[in-house]
Amino acid sequence: MATSSAKPTPLLKDELDIVIPTIRNLDFLEMWRPFFEKYHLIIVQDGDPSKTIRVPNGFDYELYNRNDINRILGPKASCISFKDSACRCFGYLVSKKKYIFTIDDDCFVAKDPSGKDINALEQHIKNLLTPSTPHFFNTLYDPYREGADFVRGYPFSLREGAPTAVSHGLWLNIPDYDAPTQLVKPLERNTRYVDAVMTVPKGTLFPMCGMNLAFDRELIGPAMYFGLMGDGQPIGRYDDMWAGWCMKVICDHLGLGVKTGLPYIWHSKASNPFVNLKKEYNGIFWQEKAIPFFQSVVLPKDCTTVQKCYLALADQVKTKLGEVDPYFLKLADAMVTWIEAWDEVNSPGGKPAAKTPNGSSK
Amino acid sequence: MATSSAKPTPLLKDELDIVIPTIRNLDFLEMWRPFFEKYHLIIVQDGDPSKTIRVPNGFDYELYNRNDINRILGPKASCISFKDSACRCFGYLVSKKKYIFTIDDDCFVAKDPSGKDINALEQHIKNLLTPSTPHFFNTLYDPYREGADFVRGYPFSLREGAPTAVSHGLWLNIPDYDAPTQLVKPLERNTRYVDAVMTVPKGTLFPMCGMNLAFDRELIGPAMYFGLMGDGQPIGRYDDMWAGWCMKVICDHLGLGVKTGLPYIWHSKASNPFVNLKKEYNGIFWQEKAIPFFQSVVLPKDCTTVQKCYLALADQVKTKLGEVDPYFLKLADAMVTWIEAWDEVNSPGGKPAAKTPNGSSK
Repeated sequence: MATSSAKPTPLLKDELDIVIPTIRNLDFLEMWRPFFEKYHLIIVQDGDPSKTIRVPNGFDYELYNRNDINRILGPKASCISFKDSACRCFGYLVSKKKYIFTIDDDCFVAKDPSGKDINALEQHIKNLLTPSTPHFFNTLYDPYREGADFVRGYPFSLREGAPTAVSHGLWLNIPDYDAPTQLVKPLERNTRYVDAVMTVPKGTLFPMCGMNLAFDRELIGPAMYFGLMGDGQPIGRYDDMWAGWCMKVICDHLGLGVKTGLPYIWHSKASNPFVNLKKEYNGIFWQEKAIPFFQSVVLPKDCTTVQKCYLALADQVKTKLGEVDPYFLKLADAMVTWIEAWDEVNSPGGKPAAKTPNGSSK
Repeated sequence: MATSSAKPTPLLKDELDIVIPTIRNLDFLEMWRPFFEKYHLIIVQDGDPSKTIRVPNGFDYELYNRNDINRILGPKASCISFKDSACRCFGYLVSKKKYIFTIDDDCFVAKDPSGKDINALEQHIKNLLTPSTPHFFNTLYDPYREGADFVRGYPFSLREGAPTAVSHGLWLNIPDYDAPTQLVKPLERNTRYVDAVMTVPKGTLFPMCGMNLAFDRELIGPAMYFGLMGDGQPIGRYDDMWAGWCMKVICDHLGLGVKTGLPYIWHSKASNPFVNLKKEYNGIFWQEKAIPFFQSVVLPKDCTTVQKCYLALADQVKTKLGEVDPYFLKLADAMVTWIEAWDEVNSPGGKPAAKTPNGSSK
């Protein structure tokens, strides 16, 4: 393990929140109880606010439904998606913690090859508390891991690494495929446990999945906007992708690192590929324009904060992707609204946390 | 497995040569016999030509020592290193095959986690015969592998991938560390079998190790020059690194892919860290200048062949790294000589293959 300034894990309750977009599956929290119970949960209900979400005893949580979001953000609530798991980013906004872990309610505890339960959260924390290596590729993967280091030919000046902003975890069982691939390969399961964590190099985009994801909210939080998806929007299932592209170009600009690989969760069920195709349809076309856009984005040098970067990016989205479809004009405006909402809620004199209907007060 | 145009493996004898820089270890070929015997070996003796290299019966091989290199290349032999394993690139030059696999004589057959012998060559061939994905990162690693595919959010227009030029394999047991790391961690062993092959993204440099390496000679051969190392040179142990940096910027320019990961070999012994420090000393300083140079190299658009790219690169090495040390002026000249030698030996009317002292004729 290359020397690093890793803090001892696990983190304390006042350092990390777990954000969950709705809980439909009652087994979900019971399964994660040994790992989640000591942390605070933020549940963001994605659909009908009149429905009640049941949370087992013993969990410390706050729950927001659409009425709460409208009340807290007022007109700025327009930037938060409705009836779509993209609403989870509201949880990032109202959290006061340094770290966020977000997970879907169809993701269960996976087992490592020895049959041991994987503490996904612990691995995410390890990933976030050790540096990344975005400026040069280490062939033996994460050099900060026990038993590994930088290999011959790795420049010594780069061995300090970069602060890690994002830890992207993977999925055993049901892989995160798009609708066309789901349709073509209904039986494909991911059974390969790849025992590696790696940095996504600077200048390289990747498909960030929101199922099993952790990040440093202080370093990159305002870039983790999950866009306008679901109800009333012409697209779905691109919320995490959009956040990933925006986040990555901003991390590259600010010299922050993004890791992918361990930890695995067990993705229990595939979503309906026909429903997915309907949601993804426009995105499949639009991403062919969006990827070259993000690959060529240059942020101005004076963008030294995530907020400044994000607003500059919103501006370029409007100018360059607005031609692709008017949706991107609306999305660019929502990106600006999101930053305004973030700053309002997170400013020193920001709105106080509201008591929530089902949960404990913050 | 995403659809690809993979040919059935293994390759035939007339498609691949195995290049070995000297064989000091008599067990080496016996251990690899089941996998190597059906291919042709090119052994390039790195030291004293009067010493005899013993090759066990049953192998089809040709052997070149310094006298052969001088005879075949004449004055251009100056570009081939003496008393250094960098001499192996002479083998790439005289081969007439499409694919090359090169391996060191202290690399033995490794076992996979199930205890089965790993056929490294077969995995390299799989890597080379399936496309790479340099333009976008696939989080489930090689999408062309059985049981894997492109994940949600991977642009469909990029799923054809790029032709694979290089397959870089890894090492269990003794990791490929530099002298300072060897000195600090004499007991560190690589015991982690990471079951993955991945593409090194476009625009990203990596430390290419020559111990366990395969490439498509027709696609990238002339860029696989291992530089001036060893006897009479102020540097050693940067031969493969140099080739890797040059090769990578040319692959990026030409739209070719480079993979790293599987297969593993068993690296049996660590070289002497004190001797290594002496060899690496200058390189440790110089690479701090060389890496930013390679990270910023832009090749002219009219460089449409590997040779043209390599000559343009040699020109920039002379101009930009020549300031770092006069060694780079000499190296830039040797890069030009190497291309001249390559073209001479590989032109339709090129010099015929010479009978070699110990081996069969080519």
